[in-house]
Amino acid sequence: MVSNRAEALVARPPAIAAAHLRAEADPYHPARNPRGYLNLGIAENRLVWDLLAPRLRAELSPEDVRYGPLHGSTALRDVTADLLTGVWRTKVDPDHLVVVSGASAALDIIVSVLCDPGDSIVLAAPYYGALETLLTARSGARIVAAPLSSTDGFVLDARALERAVDASTRAIVLTSPCNPTGNVHAAAALRQVLAVAERHDLDVIADEIYANSAFGGDFVSVLDPRVRGGSRARLHVIWGFAKDFGLSGLKVGVLHTSDPSTLAAARALAYFAPVSTETQALLTGLLDERAWVRRFLATNRTLLADSYRHAAATLDSYAIPYLPARAGFSVWMDLRAWVREGGELLLANEILDRARVNLTPGAAFGCREPGWFRLCHTTAPELVAEGVRRIAVVLG
Amino acid sequence: MVSNRAEALVARPPAIAAAHLRAEADPYHPARNPRGYLNLGIAENRLVWDLLAPRLRAELSPEDVRYGPLHGSTALRDVTADLLTGVWRTKVDPDHLVVVSGASAALDIIVSVLCDPGDSIVLAAPYYGALETLLTARSGARIVAAPLSSTDGFVLDARALERAVDASTRAIVLTSPCNPTGNVHAAAALRQVLAVAERHDLDVIADEIYANSAFGGDFVSVLDPRVRGGSRARLHVIWGFAKDFGLSGLKVGVLHTSDPSTLAAARALAYFAPVSTETQALLTGLLDERAWVRRFLATNRTLLADSYRHAAATLDSYAIPYLPARAGFSVWMDLRAWVREGGELLLANEILDRARVNLTPGAAFGCREPGWFRLCHTTAPELVAEGVRRIAVVLG
Repeated sequence: MVSNRAEALVARPPAIAAAHLRAEADPYHPARNPRGYLNLGIAENRLVWDLLAPRLRAELSPEDVRYGPLHGSTALRDVTADLLTGVWRTKVDPDHLVVVSGASAALDIIVSVLCDPGDSIVLAAPYYGALETLLTARSGARIVAAPLSSTDGFVLDARALERAVDASTRAIVLTSPCNPTGNVHAAAALRQVLAVAERHDLDVIADEIYANSAFGGDFVSVLDPRVRGGSRARLHVIWGFAKDFGLSGLKVGVLHTSDPSTLAAARALAYFAPVSTETQALLTGLLDERAWVRRFLATNRTLLADSYRHAAATLDSYAIPYLPARAGFSVWMDLRAWVREGGELLLANEILDRARVNLTPGAAFGCREPGWFRLCHTTAPELVAEGVRRIAVVLG
Repeated sequence: MVSNRAEALVARPPAIAAAHLRAEADPYHPARNPRGYLNLGIAENRLVWDLLAPRLRAELSPEDVRYGPLHGSTALRDVTADLLTGVWRTKVDPDHLVVVSGASAALDIIVSVLCDPGDSIVLAAPYYGALETLLTARSGARIVAAPLSSTDGFVLDARALERAVDASTRAIVLTSPCNPTGNVHAAAALRQVLAVAERHDLDVIADEIYANSAFGGDFVSVLDPRVRGGSRARLHVIWGFAKDFGLSGLKVGVLHTSDPSTLAAARALAYFAPVSTETQALLTGLLDERAWVRRFLATNRTLLADSYRHAAATLDSYAIPYLPARAGFSVWMDLRAWVREGGELLLANEILDRARVNLTPGAAFGCREPGWFRLCHTTAPELVAEGVRRIAVVLG
């Protein structure tokens, strides 16, 4: 006999997590398990472990295992602010950062602070699928999707967002760079989105968790001076260590907000999603080596570009179309030509059951046009090659 | 312009955290800062660092920084279930454990799963003060305090709980052993509480975070076979590493629940409060050394008993009365004789301003009788001695 809220929550588990666990339970190995699953559904950067491993060693002191500020230690917020100052090209105040257990928690927190139950959020589609749960489950807010158009490659379009705004809208949410398309948003497009927000008295939440993972274009934050416009107090940015540092398991997310009352409420909610002081000490040590961090991020972008080029070339070799990506860990495959009666889900199931490849279908990203699939390539290239080969067999 | 929910949240910050930060900002040092604050308000076990330090070293593997199950790794839940099987004297299934970022988050999660907004929770008073925020802020539930009586030393009394039950009551919450009184609940008293719950169709949530910190009496879990009675599916137990292992900064809490729908909903909410895989690896390594853990917990109980006896003897030497404690990190001081017009808060402020000692007044624990204060003694004995000396000066 659980609460109504709990019932609603269990009714819509995040699809990506379930598919991930299924594939991980029976993983492919060329010799030991050649029929096993290839998990190309999880946006995890497995290219950088060798670079990170020697840096992930912390000598702990008593302070590292005792109570600290629950919105993040001063030391971690200081070094994170320094890093983000470079990325966002604007001076970041460490006191405007709230460090919590994951970017997902950070998104939940900012939406819970801005929205009362029933308020709505406009979200450009396709979008990171888990947002459907993250933005609504605890906050009680609703999502209104603003579909972008495949004809121009799902480019960010402020007019599409504006069409979705109604009287219940409280905020606009962007992922920038975009997951799943790999688009990097131009300053002009972002400027237009901020203008829409200003016109309708809305806040803007930018999920910039892939900020340092743009390899084919210049990332521009909503806070970047090149964007201009909009009230900075109405801009709230999410970042984290999962993508740009490949440390997805550490579950460390960062919310930046400069509005005092929003900040106070976000800090209060951080009480329910704090990060281990010991993990914070580890990350503080990592970021404190400025020169190493600069080199690491540059190397990571090169590795991502190589990984993407390999995936794209493999798809080309089988004449499978896709949207060119400029950021992120995935390629947005265009399988529209293979969708028949039964739709996208049937094709997804064929790929999962016959090819034994975990891809994520576009519906999971709120994409209205059936036939788009996200393939995550940031793993061993031979796994991507084998996965694409098997998919090509199913496509025939 | 934050949501109504956020406004309500900011309006009642946890008092304990604020006082802690104030005292920590200007700490006492015998030579360098003899007028500094003595922080005897924070229930943190500083007696065991030397024992723990050599054990807190993890060699990380790639799996330790990648996505894992968000309700806790299999490895950590396995070793935790083994530990709790011994403590609770009942076989614990690792699949009934949900590991999240702190016992506070675990409490929020179980209350959010059981209660819809407006439902109420009966809570024996005095109680751990932060529960006022933890149990209500995100869940929307209300607390109804069931005052225990000072005349019998605030002993757990099922009749007092039953008197507080009304039509809106959904659950009973206990802290066991009790923080702040240091009482260890007898099996018979717990059995009577379960009978009240059964009679009124309520769930029982037991916060057993001090389970291994009973030094003057035999701890009995609500799940212990000696308690008997009650439906096990209606019993939900919280534990964590903050108290029994002195690892408060790691923010690792555990919820045990065996009801399938409650468990499913709790796992879904764990999505918003996961623990770093790297911290999980550290704790898995720690618990995996069974023989060391047994010795550590026994040594910890001895250290706690010594620390308590020293604090009690110091209070005795100044003829300051207190309730004898059998568990926990604190002593429940009886300063009723010193409360004058202006009440308990005036006395608390005098102690904070003139003695520069951070004690927590009974009102922060929902205690209706003015004049009770919690003094945390699990720090260097000379700090406790200096603090009590200064308090005695203010009391005159």
